[in-house]
Amino acid sequence: MSSVFGKNLIVTVFGQSHSKAIGVSIDNLPAGFEIDMDELSAFMNRRSAEGKSYSTKRKEKDQIEFLSGLVGNTTCAAPLCAIIRNNDYKLSDYESLKNIPRPSHADYTSQMKYKGYQDPTGGGHFSGRLTAPLCIAGAICLQILKKEGISIHAHIKKIYDVEDTSFNPIGNDVDNVKMLLENDFPVIDKQKGILMQEKIHIASEQLDSIGGIIECAVYDLPVGIGEPMFDGLENNISKAVFAIPAVKGIEFGNGFRCTDLKGSENNDPFYINDGKILTKTNNHGGILGGISTGMPLIFRTAVKPTPSIGIEQDSVSLSESVNKKIKISGRHDPCIVPRAVPCVEAAAAIALLDMYMSYRIWR
Amino acid sequence: MSSVFGKNLIVTVFGQSHSKAIGVSIDNLPAGFEIDMDELSAFMNRRSAEGKSYSTKRKEKDQIEFLSGLVGNTTCAAPLCAIIRNNDYKLSDYESLKNIPRPSHADYTSQMKYKGYQDPTGGGHFSGRLTAPLCIAGAICLQILKKEGISIHAHIKKIYDVEDTSFNPIGNDVDNVKMLLENDFPVIDKQKGILMQEKIHIASEQLDSIGGIIECAVYDLPVGIGEPMFDGLENNISKAVFAIPAVKGIEFGNGFRCTDLKGSENNDPFYINDGKILTKTNNHGGILGGISTGMPLIFRTAVKPTPSIGIEQDSVSLSESVNKKIKISGRHDPCIVPRAVPCVEAAAAIALLDMYMSYRIWR
Amino acid sequence: MSSVFGKNLIVTVFGQSHSKAIGVSIDNLPAGFEIDMDELSAFMNRRSAEGKSYSTKRKEKDQIEFLSGLVGNTTCAAPLCAIIRNNDYKLSDYESLKNIPRPSHADYTSQMKYKGYQDPTGGGHFSGRLTAPLCIAGAICLQILKKEGISIHAHIKKIYDVEDTSFNPIGNDVDNVKMLLENDFPVIDKQKGILMQEKIHIASEQLDSIGGIIECAVYDLPVGIGEPMFDGLENNISKAVFAIPAVKGIEFGNGFRCTDLKGSENNDPFYINDGKILTKTNNHGGILGGISTGMPLIFRTAVKPTPSIGIEQDSVSLSESVNKKIKISGRHDPCIVPRAVPCVEAAAAIALLDMYMSYRIWR
Amino acid sequence: MSSVFGKNLIVTVFGQSHSKAIGVSIDNLPAGFEIDMDELSAFMNRRSAEGKSYSTKRKEKDQIEFLSGLVGNTTCAAPLCAIIRNNDYKLSDYESLKNIPRPSHADYTSQMKYKGYQDPTGGGHFSGRLTAPLCIAGAICLQILKKEGISIHAHIKKIYDVEDTSFNPIGNDVDNVKMLLENDFPVIDKQKGILMQEKIHIASEQLDSIGGIIECAVYDLPVGIGEPMFDGLENNISKAVFAIPAVKGIEFGNGFRCTDLKGSENNDPFYINDGKILTKTNNHGGILGGISTGMPLIFRTAVKPTPSIGIEQDSVSLSESVNKKIKISGRHDPCIVPRAVPCVEAAAAIALLDMYMSYRIWR
Repeated sequence: MSSVFGKNLIVTVFGQSHSKAIGVSIDNLPAGFEIDMDELSAFMNRRSAEGKSYSTKRKEKDQIEFLSGLVGNTTCAAPLCAIIRNNDYKLSDYESLKNIPRPSHADYTSQMKYKGYQDPTGGGHFSGRLTAPLCIAGAICLQILKKEGISIHAHIKKIYDVEDTSFNPIGNDVDNVKMLLENDFPVIDKQKGILMQEKIHIASEQLDSIGGIIECAVYDLPVGIGEPMFDGLENNISKAVFAIPAVKGIEFGNGFRCTDLKGSENNDPFYINDGKILTKTNNHGGILGGISTGMPLIFRTAVKPTPSIGIEQDSVSLSESVNKKIKISGRHDPCIVPRAVPCVEAAAAIALLDMYMSYRIWR
Repeated sequence: MSSVFGKNLIVTVFGQSHSKAIGVSIDNLPAGFEIDMDELSAFMNRRSAEGKSYSTKRKEKDQIEFLSGLVGNTTCAAPLCAIIRNNDYKLSDYESLKNIPRPSHADYTSQMKYKGYQDPTGGGHFSGRLTAPLCIAGAICLQILKKEGISIHAHIKKIYDVEDTSFNPIGNDVDNVKMLLENDFPVIDKQKGILMQEKIHIASEQLDSIGGIIECAVYDLPVGIGEPMFDGLENNISKAVFAIPAVKGIEFGNGFRCTDLKGSENNDPFYINDGKILTKTNNHGGILGGISTGMPLIFRTAVKPTPSIGIEQDSVSLSESVNKKIKISGRHDPCIVPRAVPCVEAAAAIALLDMYMSYRIWR
Repeated sequence: MSSVFGKNLIVTVFGQSHSKAIGVSIDNLPAGFEIDMDELSAFMNRRSAEGKSYSTKRKEKDQIEFLSGLVGNTTCAAPLCAIIRNNDYKLSDYESLKNIPRPSHADYTSQMKYKGYQDPTGGGHFSGRLTAPLCIAGAICLQILKKEGISIHAHIKKIYDVEDTSFNPIGNDVDNVKMLLENDFPVIDKQKGILMQEKIHIASEQLDSIGGIIECAVYDLPVGIGEPMFDGLENNISKAVFAIPAVKGIEFGNGFRCTDLKGSENNDPFYINDGKILTKTNNHGGILGGISTGMPLIFRTAVKPTPSIGIEQDSVSLSESVNKKIKISGRHDPCIVPRAVPCVEAAAAIALLDMYMSYRIWR
Repeated sequence: MSSVFGKNLIVTVFGQSHSKAIGVSIDNLPAGFEIDMDELSAFMNRRSAEGKSYSTKRKEKDQIEFLSGLVGNTTCAAPLCAIIRNNDYKLSDYESLKNIPRPSHADYTSQMKYKGYQDPTGGGHFSGRLTAPLCIAGAICLQILKKEGISIHAHIKKIYDVEDTSFNPIGNDVDNVKMLLENDFPVIDKQKGILMQEKIHIASEQLDSIGGIIECAVYDLPVGIGEPMFDGLENNISKAVFAIPAVKGIEFGNGFRCTDLKGSENNDPFYINDGKILTKTNNHGGILGGISTGMPLIFRTAVKPTPSIGIEQDSVSLSESVNKKIKISGRHDPCIVPRAVPCVEAAAAIALLDMYMSYRIWR
């Protein structure tokens, strides 16, 4: 496996769902940055299942312990390592995973790749639980970017067949964003949020699951971030975001819809407003040639329905080489989209801080 | 800029649209691989504009010169460098690009980032012309992968409002693929191809442009390729594919459509067929947990309409800080999708060969 | 800081001398390797000061805790993270380090680079204590290499003015090596070892310190490891070995002494022995063109005298910008060479396993 | 092979001794830097054999052609690629290299590693000729560093048994340095230079060869460059310098001699001079904890005697598996040390510019 990301900022994620701890090491953070621990906790709570009606009842107490890299709460240039202890799990649910792979999980591919030596319990390193250390790193990157004037916010754009309003592509939706942060269920249109939660409830009742789309905006990026042709904004943000399990697609600006338009419609004319250069449509999502334009950077990412469902499914017995039924017990989120929202922000923040560091070199 | 890709296979692209030459260096190719030069030429011709009714009339003669890395036509372990000389261009068309940026091109971002020192002629390093060295590298990677039993094929899935049939997600469309390779305009449904070409013709007549979607399939990947969580298949293929100018989105398997399904519909059950483990839907596009499943790896990528159009557009004068009109002269492809098809195959091949190398380590 | 090493095997070291813990994450280990925990402990004990007459009386109990990457004692492909808790230290000794830098320590450079935000206690991330996680990673790499038939052994070649016998460059000194491993003070010539310990004792009495040279041999490397020109054996071993504090030089084969010889003397003729190709002198230390020859890989590395001495020294007050005397209290090793021996083996093992992985790709 | 160096500045060297061309690609240079082409030529001439009495009579005309990365002589942010065409060589000398390996060359290791597919002519990618593209990259890095106030100079410290004066470790030897640059044979003590040249002449007469030591100083580095523990100054300079064929050792400051001193002698006290913080001995060679101190960075590197000698040597026939004599014809430098001097400067410059870029990030 290769769970290391970045060029100048190097983020290493470790741990399995049921290992002693999960954690992250972050190399080359600037010295002297004071982490706001309350803000970090608030961010982690957005990812946590606790106290959320639409989520699993499983209790995950994510207590972060900083092992290194800080003096008090302030970075000291040494690599920062933060861990979260895993509590004891009943392992009985997972015993057969190496033999009867769960559909659309990584059980089968990891069994084949690692020849049975992988840790199958709870999905091992493939577990959604590993997004917790990703979020720790992302939350710290977000705070550093914020100090540099850059902010990142995501909301649920779609769950199953209910669509939220989109971010305004040509402005900073400050008020929407504030609301999002105050809200347990981050949508712009509250009514749509209620409908979405109903859909989740129905899926849960049916022992089924649903997915959705997350839209993320980066505001106040200076012009000039991104190093084409292989370290441009799209390249690196997508590389980071696909580290989140269940993500199956990403698009920037108007994305796939750009193919429905003619060049004269999709092109994004420049204009001067109060001495500032802006563009009229921001169809390109704040990126031209892999480099930030100064307009909001906007991307959307597709999150598949939770593969763990209570309905009986078809699978195979690897040892006997015959077809077998599988029924997944245990409690699982019928929809992981709401909890994936901060994960998308985190992945984007890690990629962006790394590219921001490259940008600073020849400033 | 950062035009270097890969971990074990390191591909470095260099050149500008109008520099003396464009080229690519490929590090860590296996020794003793004989390049089929005819196959390479045939691949490059698919990208070339020459002799294609739907394309620009500009003549680009892409004569590849190998500077190093070969003994005869066989790799010798030393880094392979291949270049294409640029012929003389009339530079007059491009003189004002630094002052009046073309909408949806990289003129503005590169002017801001490189403070006017970038090479503006023909788009410089941002030019679509730089996909030629990408294709050289990709064509060689494709040949090496083919020897290992792996093949990669792409077709035009959509142009503007005309959609082609999709690849069969659960089988190797051998016959379709053969047809694609024999065809100048790679579609599965020839009738749709004729309609698409009409749309391109109309856009051209209107001095406008259109975009589309390219679908790419990788066949006969062994189970186990991909190194999650940051070097999985989606991470690295997307990082490579976004190096192609005009690409604005990527999705794997059923991609964004997975959000329209319930888990019970989107999940992909395993079954045994003739002792072999297969899946029923391949909704995940041959990837679970970032690792190949052995089913066809399928992804789609959105290509925006060519930003160079003949219609007058709004822009600004950077020096005078006022709004200005811009009219782009010269001949440009009204739709670059057909020529981008081999580029997508090339980018995928580079990413896959690099990951295939990682896969071999602990085999 | 950048405490990440390697291409395919990625080792990340974290922690400060007095942080909650120090540790290491190792990415991309093979799955299914069972770590011999006794052997690991024995290796760590060689680095430890405990129970060694020639060493500091400070007690460091290095209890390794594995947080991830194992199922039982067997690697499971997920990144392995191992930590050592730091016990409580009296911090009073270190309070003035940011103002009055200790000569030949990193106090001054880190104060300037990190603007006072570095962790000064115990040397922070610059402390020799950070070689403990390096040794954990190295010990695991050594075990994996051993399974592949490769062994690494180092001994004290020189302390101050006493020189040990050298490794036999053209053979595997099996008996010497066994003795080394059984010995607390790893030398080939025991008498020289006694003299060396006397020198250390004298230095200690004088509140002074001494350094020395460590010689390291890698046996039974297959021919063909190393990726020139920048990832050859010398390049990567030296990059890794210079991570050990106090190392100031490295040489391969006869090293600097090759300059005393003529080409006809320094050249290393090939000959056939029992069908095997060997060389007569191994003056090149088992490396030609950055690639292993199959002869023992031999290198030596210079370790400077411990900079912490009890004698009063000249320094400056950074805040007052005046000359100041400094007297370092506390207990420090008068000679760190014996404890650096396993560190050199560890650094070499990490570099070699990474290069061994590259070597396996096109096997 | 892996001929790519660097993190932010990525240098890729390609070519073989007798391939069509040799060259280098440099990624992520700052935009807007005007290369002084005369200075570049002068630097390349120092490496060239032409017109040097002590060198081979073989004529190598190194005409640099810039393929990309420049507008006029000014960098344009796009990767810079520069090549040198190889003229026609008589290949007859090299035909048997794959069967009867030359002692102390890479013929044997490359034959084993690349299974006979390597390019044997002239040593292929292992040839000293590949230091020409290294010098192109280094010369450009030197010019950029110079603009930032940093200079790098090397001289011949030793040839066989003749030693030159050392650089003054605690001052900038401006006058010596000027003399060096004006001199074809870069030594501080001209008389020693004459003796050295006599030694080379004698070795040449004897059909033998000799080696030596090169000392290199970096002046006016700001305090704070270097990213420990794996990207410190010693780590990366040594990694780069070992890319030069024939280098077998490197030491920083007083290097291996530090082991002859006590801590009280080797330690380097700080003092205030005119408000500036300096050290008294600079025994550490301008580096503490892997980070620059502001004192001159000084290192020495051992260059082995040219392995190509006219005297008959012992080798083996790989095909017949018997001992064979080998006699190397052709003209070769009896001592490559003088021509290696700019190569050492170049390698140091590449490593330093890359680390200087890292240093700039959090400035």
